[in-house]
Amino acid sequence: MVNGVNSEPLYAVGLDVGGANTKACLVKVGSGRIKEVKVVSTYFPIWKRGKDELPKVLQQLKELLLQGFEAGVVGVTMTAELSDAYFCKREGVHHVLNSVKSVFPEDVISVIDCDGRLLSVDEAKADPLRVAAANWMATASMVSKLVPTCLVVDVGSTTTSIIPIAYGKPIAIGKNDLEKLACGELIYTGALRTNLAAIINRVPVKGMMVRVSSELFATTADVHLVLNHISMEDYTCDTADGRGKSRLECLARLSRVVCADIDMLDEGELLRLASFIYERQIDQIVEGVREVYERLKREAPNLEIPAVVAGIGRRFLAEEAVKRLGIRAIDLANLIGSEASKAAPSVGVAILAASSRVGEALWSSISSLR
Amino acid sequence: MVNGVNSEPLYAVGLDVGGANTKACLVKVGSGRIKEVKVVSTYFPIWKRGKDELPKVLQQLKELLLQGFEAGVVGVTMTAELSDAYFCKREGVHHVLNSVKSVFPEDVISVIDCDGRLLSVDEAKADPLRVAAANWMATASMVSKLVPTCLVVDVGSTTTSIIPIAYGKPIAIGKNDLEKLACGELIYTGALRTNLAAIINRVPVKGMMVRVSSELFATTADVHLVLNHISMEDYTCDTADGRGKSRLECLARLSRVVCADIDMLDEGELLRLASFIYERQIDQIVEGVREVYERLKREAPNLEIPAVVAGIGRRFLAEEAVKRLGIRAIDLANLIGSEASKAAPSVGVAILAASSRVGEALWSSISSLR
Repeated sequence: MVNGVNSEPLYAVGLDVGGANTKACLVKVGSGRIKEVKVVSTYFPIWKRGKDELPKVLQQLKELLLQGFEAGVVGVTMTAELSDAYFCKREGVHHVLNSVKSVFPEDVISVIDCDGRLLSVDEAKADPLRVAAANWMATASMVSKLVPTCLVVDVGSTTTSIIPIAYGKPIAIGKNDLEKLACGELIYTGALRTNLAAIINRVPVKGMMVRVSSELFATTADVHLVLNHISMEDYTCDTADGRGKSRLECLARLSRVVCADIDMLDEGELLRLASFIYERQIDQIVEGVREVYERLKREAPNLEIPAVVAGIGRRFLAEEAVKRLGIRAIDLANLIGSEASKAAPSVGVAILAASSRVGEALWSSISSLR
Repeated sequence: MVNGVNSEPLYAVGLDVGGANTKACLVKVGSGRIKEVKVVSTYFPIWKRGKDELPKVLQQLKELLLQGFEAGVVGVTMTAELSDAYFCKREGVHHVLNSVKSVFPEDVISVIDCDGRLLSVDEAKADPLRVAAANWMATASMVSKLVPTCLVVDVGSTTTSIIPIAYGKPIAIGKNDLEKLACGELIYTGALRTNLAAIINRVPVKGMMVRVSSELFATTADVHLVLNHISMEDYTCDTADGRGKSRLECLARLSRVVCADIDMLDEGELLRLASFIYERQIDQIVEGVREVYERLKREAPNLEIPAVVAGIGRRFLAEEAVKRLGIRAIDLANLIGSEASKAAPSVGVAILAASSRVGEALWSSISSLR
């Protein structure tokens, strides 16, 4: 065993290749314990920049994290296969895995499937729908070791995953994105990239309820910036109009949602509009949480079940949503640290891959991430 | 008078500078009558291609239409000022008018305002919000001469205008897009470019009601192509994923709306999904039509009030919507010809500009367009 229990330290890498953001995590393991965790994320909109750029992006993330050391294991999960850079998911899964293979030796790569098992690259390529969009399972694997019965609400830049965990086991019923969208386990609303026209049909302006434009004029990042939920540094995606991320530019984008501009609507009016959209976005998440929580309650009727909130929207979206339902929130940042909590799938799949070498006992040291 | 009643023929040009499509119309006038009408349209997404290209596009349209003849009058209307190519409408109106001035002599240019009056370029630039998005008025001016009391329902690639006309006068209450969006006179839904996520939150798939992705994965052009409402030639905008416009590629885009692909959903399933979205799009238009029609009814209580349907979606969207409310539809194509009916604002503003020279009598020959 070159990088096993007896050959320390073990450098475990976790990759979460999304359509808009690619996240990578390094977990350093020594003496059967997690010694260090580092997370990097890069905004890489694959349908815009082109899939051929992916190997280069992965290479950069690798160098940034490993700085010359060798990865003993590489855990992989993805959602980029859904991007319209690919005609179908099969093509996407194959391309993502080939890209990972071009950067890391194939024999250290493991791919998580939607049942939480690790597959070889060849196994994953033989059954691509089994590993497509399995990144929620990477998060679920990790959280289930920390809080054995809970609901995970992970609000990322683009989507919200709602994962029921009972007695240490994820019990999600959706086997793929389609089924998850049907049962509330996936809500296509996020903290940064969501087109506001996909959240609301009308908004209040000057005492009227006004229909909105269906163009991509503004995104949730504009709402959350003007409401001080995020800073300009957190606004890590493109703006809808290619302009800047200043407060004034965000307000200008918001005004365009009702075909107006900042000569026509003052800041107070635009903040009311933003608050209204924020509330409707919380409603979207509440609807999914309620549906999944009720199922989970039936599985664990005698327990008080908290929600573990994760992702960049964990405080102002996930926590706010679960509060409305009287559910206690546990911030994943308090369990594994703030940076790691924003990129939970990459952390989860790194530790999963590492523990397949070092043993299950590794999980008990997760809290050292904090 | 160089190009007036006594100097024939008069070549009148109408320009409708939209954010996505720019349309131009040539009306040839002789002996106080319309002799010929020609319409050209070009897909020019100004926020993608850049506003600096606009003069070139206008020059090309001019050459195509006039083929060396001089324009005696040029009527202008626009909606491009709303595009996020511009920071605000003032900037947009100024840039559009300067672009027109770079192609036509300033003294032949007239700009229609939202009261149906013609302004000089300087007057329009002094009060940009008065001419912003006034293209509905160009259509209303024309239709009011043909059907004195009616509701115009003009479904273009991007938006739907609903205009009440009573006793020969447009009686819209919205003074700008914001007010129109509030009162049902403008619905931001169109036959080609609308993001499906702005129309529906859930769709039926395999017996489930499934939430949809909020990405720009597919547009109404995909729905209307697979339902045989439009041909590949009518699909005159970009596809959401940059791929082709074949039936198979449209179906593939539709499958992605629920995060699936065509390996997962068969054609029957996708056609049911498309039909569902089509019905919801009609509902959007019905809602606006009902609101505006009820107001119009109060103005003209004793008349049977038909709807004049226009634009590229006039048959499968506008006519379908008014039918649901038991309103008789008159196809604008039967009044002014099929090509002209798809670009009514450019035709209307051309004739308005021409009649300001030749006299109101010109309107009585509109039906020769047919």
